[in-house]
Amino acid sequence: MNLSTCTPADLEVLEAAKAIARRLHIDNLQEVGAALRTASGEIFSGIHFESATGFATICGEVAAMSVMVAAGHRDLDTIAAVVYRETGDLHLLPPCGRCREMIADFNPRAWVILSAAENHWQLDAWQSPVKARISDLLPRKSHWLPGVGS
Amino acid sequence: MNLSTCTPADLEVLEAAKAIARRLHIDNLQEVGAALRTASGEIFSGIHFESATGFATICGEVAAMSVMVAAGHRDLDTIAAVVYRETGDLHLLPPCGRCREMIADFNPRAWVILSAAENHWQLDAWQSPVKARISDLLPRKSHWLPGVGS
Amino acid sequence: MNLSTCTPADLEVLEAAKAIARRLHIDNLQEVGAALRTASGEIFSGIHFESATGFATICGEVAAMSVMVAAGHRDLDTIAAVVYRETGDLHLLPPCGRCREMIADFNPRAWVILSAAENHWQLDAWQSPVKARISDLLPRKSHWLPGVGS
Amino acid sequence: MNLSTCTPADLEVLEAAKAIARRLHIDNLQEVGAALRTASGEIFSGIHFESATGFATICGEVAAMSVMVAAGHRDLDTIAAVVYRETGDLHLLPPCGRCREMIADFNPRAWVILSAAENHWQLDAWQSPVKARISDLLPRKSHWLPGVGS
Repeated sequence: MNLSTCTPADLEVLEAAKAIARRLHIDNLQEVGAALRTASGEIFSGIHFESATGFATICGEVAAMSVMVAAGHRDLDTIAAVVYRETGDLHLLPPCGRCREMIADFNPRAWVILSAAENHWQLDAWQSPVKARISDLLPRKSHWLPGVGS
Repeated sequence: MNLSTCTPADLEVLEAAKAIARRLHIDNLQEVGAALRTASGEIFSGIHFESATGFATICGEVAAMSVMVAAGHRDLDTIAAVVYRETGDLHLLPPCGRCREMIADFNPRAWVILSAAENHWQLDAWQSPVKARISDLLPRKSHWLPGVGS
Repeated sequence: MNLSTCTPADLEVLEAAKAIARRLHIDNLQEVGAALRTASGEIFSGIHFESATGFATICGEVAAMSVMVAAGHRDLDTIAAVVYRETGDLHLLPPCGRCREMIADFNPRAWVILSAAENHWQLDAWQSPVKARISDLLPRKSHWLPGVGS
Repeated sequence: MNLSTCTPADLEVLEAAKAIARRLHIDNLQEVGAALRTASGEIFSGIHFESATGFATICGEVAAMSVMVAAGHRDLDTIAAVVYRETGDLHLLPPCGRCREMIADFNPRAWVILSAAENHWQLDAWQSPVKARISDLLPRKSHWLPGVGS
């Protein structure tokens, strides 16, 4: 996978994800914080929340995108998600398949911040953030919104 | 179903849902606005957005709850969702089964604003808003978050 | 809620749900068996399976409906779901909000088998099965498939 | 992406997907057929079905996996999905992000049958089937079932 170096603006997105993950952490209920930057330079953040029926659980990235859309934006540029553990451990979480679909729906060339190490559960992996295109994380996406696309 | 009269505070929630539905409407892409009031009296709103893969579409209610949680709240009290059509028509939309699960996850006694008429697609139905408990809209819910409950 | 007595044909559906739940039980992975009868009298059954990303978990009812559709049927009449525990305990599980939508999509007058007791986690509740209409479990459903409906 | 040549056994899977897509096609309701082969050599097939609330729509691949699990298998080896149009046109559909999660849950080295051409909507693309590993279609998957894995 093509991984690119993070710019200072990318690191701001990552800091925003870490900040909400720490601030709103509730054990087993709200654990994954996410933040995104739009092309116009605004930062929005959200936090995941569990549902008692697992299928309805909302990922951090979905929450952040919902906050972005509710604020009148759709020009997603860069996104990051962070698990924060009670122990203080952090992990950069790659988006799940559903979030990959949604990120690519907004922008097939969006950047996703990841750890350089393949195994994001490795203890220090979060200290080496890099970024990848969503198109490399969801190659051969099947469906596109009218007007957006491959 | 037990339907109760809306208070002025409920009508404010409804106005907030109508406002975001009108302000952020994009045909076939962003059509259902939702708003909610927390027990502490704050109002949050969000708007639905389509995904190219239907299963990933986010309902207005999910968006509004994501905004609420991202702002540090979980004390959902009353919620409303409104479809706004290009024609200017409005409809009070009852929550889908997934949203009912999520609303009840936050508060099994939450209120949902509905039209008094069973058929919410009826032209003037939105002009007679009433409210019902989520427990009447999702009776016999199977699963509960620890600490919340039936 | 209007609860009706189970007929011998209903109890066959329940037995089929119990049978698959026992036969294919894998702890924490496959725990909820479901079965359904079509109007034409055929019985289909399926079992839930967990996904590592919770939102992708498939309920027993969804599995049974997928098996029905793959066999060329859509005329769902009666459905039941059963959790089987390693201890041997059984519980009649009411469908989640997503399954209620799907059941009503096939037939807004479909029957769902439930325990007479409100609390299906009660130890002997499964021994008193009754049935309810899906329309009583998902009142005020918002959306209908063309040709089906309220 | 690494694409491999289809074996005769792979082409059997593809034929099974085409067969169910044709046999059970209902316009706008049941359009994507899928089939899979287990490591033990059994073939299972399913067809997608729409829900009136889009998020509850079941993909062809989910249906085929539900049929496999209900038959007591989990050893997914190769999977294919085909859209069949009323016009007679066929398209090999790459799995959506949710299906990629589920396929990799069963087997992180499972094969997915795709068209050699990137654009599967191209008219003759279905006539050149190849296969890719699910790990190349969902690189950096976040979560794994206990006992399965990267």
